[in-house]
Amino acid sequence: MFQEFEDASDPTKSPARIAALRNEMVRNGIDGYIVPRSDEHQGEYVAPYAERLRWLTGFSGSAGLAIILNDRAALFIDGRYTIQARSQIDTALLELRHVIDEPPTEWLRSNLKRDQRIGYDPWLLTLDQVDRYAKACMGAGAELVPIEGNLIDRIWDDQPARPAAPVASHPTQFAGRRLAEKQPELKAAIERAGATAAVLTQPDSIAWAFNIRGADIAHTPVTLAFAILSTEGRPQLFISPEKLSEDVRAELEPDIELCRPEDFTDALTRLGREGASVLIDPAWTAHRIVDVLTYAGAKIIRGADPCINPKACKNPIELEGARMAHRRDAVAMARFLAWFDRESPSGALDEITAARALEAFRQDTGALKEISFDTISAAGPNAALPHYRVTTESNRRIRPGEIYLVDSGAQYLDGTTDITRTMIVGEPAAAMRDRFTRVLKGMIAVTLARFPQRTTGAQLDSFARAALWQAGVDFDHGTGHGVGSYLSVHEGPARISKTGTVPLETGMILSNEPGYYKEGEYGIRIENLVVVKTPEPIAGGDRPMHSFETLTLAPIDRRLISVDLLDERELAWLNAYHRRVVEEIGPLLDAETADWLAQATAPL
Amino acid sequence: MFQEFEDASDPTKSPARIAALRNEMVRNGIDGYIVPRSDEHQGEYVAPYAERLRWLTGFSGSAGLAIILNDRAALFIDGRYTIQARSQIDTALLELRHVIDEPPTEWLRSNLKRDQRIGYDPWLLTLDQVDRYAKACMGAGAELVPIEGNLIDRIWDDQPARPAAPVASHPTQFAGRRLAEKQPELKAAIERAGATAAVLTQPDSIAWAFNIRGADIAHTPVTLAFAILSTEGRPQLFISPEKLSEDVRAELEPDIELCRPEDFTDALTRLGREGASVLIDPAWTAHRIVDVLTYAGAKIIRGADPCINPKACKNPIELEGARMAHRRDAVAMARFLAWFDRESPSGALDEITAARALEAFRQDTGALKEISFDTISAAGPNAALPHYRVTTESNRRIRPGEIYLVDSGAQYLDGTTDITRTMIVGEPAAAMRDRFTRVLKGMIAVTLARFPQRTTGAQLDSFARAALWQAGVDFDHGTGHGVGSYLSVHEGPARISKTGTVPLETGMILSNEPGYYKEGEYGIRIENLVVVKTPEPIAGGDRPMHSFETLTLAPIDRRLISVDLLDERELAWLNAYHRRVVEEIGPLLDAETADWLAQATAPL
Repeated sequence: MFQEFEDASDPTKSPARIAALRNEMVRNGIDGYIVPRSDEHQGEYVAPYAERLRWLTGFSGSAGLAIILNDRAALFIDGRYTIQARSQIDTALLELRHVIDEPPTEWLRSNLKRDQRIGYDPWLLTLDQVDRYAKACMGAGAELVPIEGNLIDRIWDDQPARPAAPVASHPTQFAGRRLAEKQPELKAAIERAGATAAVLTQPDSIAWAFNIRGADIAHTPVTLAFAILSTEGRPQLFISPEKLSEDVRAELEPDIELCRPEDFTDALTRLGREGASVLIDPAWTAHRIVDVLTYAGAKIIRGADPCINPKACKNPIELEGARMAHRRDAVAMARFLAWFDRESPSGALDEITAARALEAFRQDTGALKEISFDTISAAGPNAALPHYRVTTESNRRIRPGEIYLVDSGAQYLDGTTDITRTMIVGEPAAAMRDRFTRVLKGMIAVTLARFPQRTTGAQLDSFARAALWQAGVDFDHGTGHGVGSYLSVHEGPARISKTGTVPLETGMILSNEPGYYKEGEYGIRIENLVVVKTPEPIAGGDRPMHSFETLTLAPIDRRLISVDLLDERELAWLNAYHRRVVEEIGPLLDAETADWLAQATAPL
Repeated sequence: MFQEFEDASDPTKSPARIAALRNEMVRNGIDGYIVPRSDEHQGEYVAPYAERLRWLTGFSGSAGLAIILNDRAALFIDGRYTIQARSQIDTALLELRHVIDEPPTEWLRSNLKRDQRIGYDPWLLTLDQVDRYAKACMGAGAELVPIEGNLIDRIWDDQPARPAAPVASHPTQFAGRRLAEKQPELKAAIERAGATAAVLTQPDSIAWAFNIRGADIAHTPVTLAFAILSTEGRPQLFISPEKLSEDVRAELEPDIELCRPEDFTDALTRLGREGASVLIDPAWTAHRIVDVLTYAGAKIIRGADPCINPKACKNPIELEGARMAHRRDAVAMARFLAWFDRESPSGALDEITAARALEAFRQDTGALKEISFDTISAAGPNAALPHYRVTTESNRRIRPGEIYLVDSGAQYLDGTTDITRTMIVGEPAAAMRDRFTRVLKGMIAVTLARFPQRTTGAQLDSFARAALWQAGVDFDHGTGHGVGSYLSVHEGPARISKTGTVPLETGMILSNEPGYYKEGEYGIRIENLVVVKTPEPIAGGDRPMHSFETLTLAPIDRRLISVDLLDERELAWLNAYHRRVVEEIGPLLDAETADWLAQATAPL
């Protein structure tokens, strides 16, 4: 099993640990310490050694930040985690605050005293963050100071070791382009930014740039490393030698200078001494890196990581891989959904059983490298928590009359999947069908959108909401995120949300996942992955328009659809989609599942 | 007539005038001079004395900027004016550049030489602009220097005098709130911004804050003035005494300290000496004002003009006024449209005749104070220019088989109107009906939108485009702009466009005007004004949702609608809207027009 169902957070130990941290603060002459939920690479997912925030506070969400002062402390989280955090932390010890509405900068301004010194680990905060927090400290007459060596690491006795999983090269049959082909494009991007070098800090950028994959982080096949690209000479990759087999080393060495991680800061210093202009992505680069470069004399150029855009725009071979991966994944999903329909009416299934079954069906494909994230397997009121994660404590029986929501995905060599389906066990209430159908209308509206070049995700987001708004409801997350190619299931730069200001470009893979959540009762989400297609002329029109190709192939629960709420175009789409699922997946199924599929996709 | 049809620009004189300016530059020891199309108040419309850009270059558009160097010069305009500018200016003398794609900053960077000095009038550029241009000059090793006294004014012999139209007080029966009631709210906003005073530079903010109206600018009933609001004491209004009758003076003096314009800079200096924290809107404040304040020791706080938001959110009395104004305007529109249908089949009408007729019908209401902008009266291919302005040279006959587009509005004491209707003379081509119906679908989609609080115009903009995108077409302007209450027909801060990041709030009046333009053939636009209504609960929903109330009441040309392209909901809206037009306007019409209206609004 890739998924674990134990709750790794332990709030009972939080008081002692925070006390120990405060001792450590005194020893270092500081009055406060910032503990982010990030590692040196600033990614969404971190290895166990970097789960410092969870260790300290008990909070296990994927984003958050604590500030510990002598006499008070606060945990800053986003709306997804309000309920979860309240149950995981000791709120007598830690004030809980909403990171957007009650930001850390404001809290610092009103809680710091003149001349106080607030410490932070310069490897764990980005340039942008340090700029913001330093200003906030200054506003209170206090000072933000970098502290060498992480203070949590000094008090965390059984801290897990840093991961050192073996690296595999990612063959061109999946990557589509050799690493030597990608380098000139990256050099050109660095030059366009007016720089002579770029520092890569994001593991998925490095994986993409060098056609390598790893297993340092759960569910995301990346290796933790840094890299320096220069407009002249070979790129340098700073990576533990123990991760590289002889074969992989031999394959990479013609194109890459392989360096040891401990030489990274020296290399940065050398860049600075040479007077390089270094491209730095301020949102993703540890402050320490910028500090070293600046001190050594480098000119810092703030700009986007040059890998982000080409990585997001999948090439034809990656797209063909994505189609293969989705067909394969669809077989597992069809078997799971058929199994679910057989087993669930008894009322004996529970959330963990279902998540295990789904992972097993994916294992049966023989190609599963990992799941792409912890399956959200949620029954009844648990489905109303968009980011619910089932544990042995929260595990709930899936009862007749209740909704079951499953959001899951797989990592295959040829592609990453992410799919959500919402099913009813037995008979749905009328309100459930109304809401489900409106969510479906939103999903279809995005699927069928045509849109001109340079259209952003923000411009499409409301299409997913219009039918919900008409009924006085909405959902509090974006409509979609980018998805990698055997990489991160949450990938930038584009997203379909009101803050998605990046234009959608040909080849980008995005999720399309509107939802509806009725607190304490049920939740609904329907998610397909789509690819942005080349803009094509439309007969009689004067501008070519993008459209979406749907990758995901799994039935949408007919029992939850109110046909009279769908217009002709929507109904036609649904029936055609179901026909396509049967045509593409039917021949790959066992007889029993094929029978189930025929019935689950019958025209409405 | 409020509208003039002469082309006031005269490109033949441009070479001599630019030569004279270059002499003036030499005399002032500068190598370049920036000539914006703005006055000291940075508004969209300026008085004739401030039409310096037009006088110098011949370009008569409502936005633009010229930079004149010794040996070269450029005019920067936006996409609306590309065709117009090319026909108005001498392109051998002035390079024509797109202000967004080829911005002035870039042109400065690549055309300036080291140590050159570029002059500007610090009353005509904003703080934001000077920041940008100074940086660009510095990038080329050159310097941006303020020059006292405008150089164009020194060489423009017959420059018109500054306007001094009488000011009228705007009675509470229209304004809804007394000026004494508005002041505490403004003081609170200034305090919230952390300031002790605010400088008002926008004429419509001043008109709103003090319940006064003027006639210094064509079509917009404002008076040119400055004001200082303080959290303590009375507001100061800097205005020519000749504009104020004894009555008006007596009415204002209890609440306002009336000052002479020539005392404005001294008052700024005094603010600075007192150590005031002064709220300045960097987008709308002349650099000179900030300079004087800073030099005198004031602390500058950058933030939005405190009048902008309350002015945009109309109070119930202003809204009732808007409804009255629109019913009155609708009578004029119905008479015009009936007249147009009677007269146009002969093929004898032309654009100017039609614009004159419309203005005359508005005059017949007995309440017309002004037209709210120059009527866009456009036949055939002229309608494909979204900002076409008819002149005696461009005037075109309205021919059978062609489309005629009329975008116009009125200023009444109780409200400002803005309406576009597109009609066919005779039989439309099939493509015209398809496009017209898709534009209508977009207009209806926005009209019928429900949306949660804090929704921005950007989130609604695509609703207006979806049906056009499906057909491979689009329009290159926003869907809607804010509209004032007997004030500016283009009013901030909200707009429905992909850049409209301001939330739509209850009481805001916005235009809803999607379009389609087929270059060289025809243009279509349908525009109604709508009001954002209080969010209301929806049965079964869990969040109250805003909706729009439509103010504009005029038939939409049935001959241009393809009923089979409309869905049930759209058709129901159209028929209900036409029913409402008949009910509200029918009783106010003469028999002949009423007969026409009955036929023009027959159910489809």
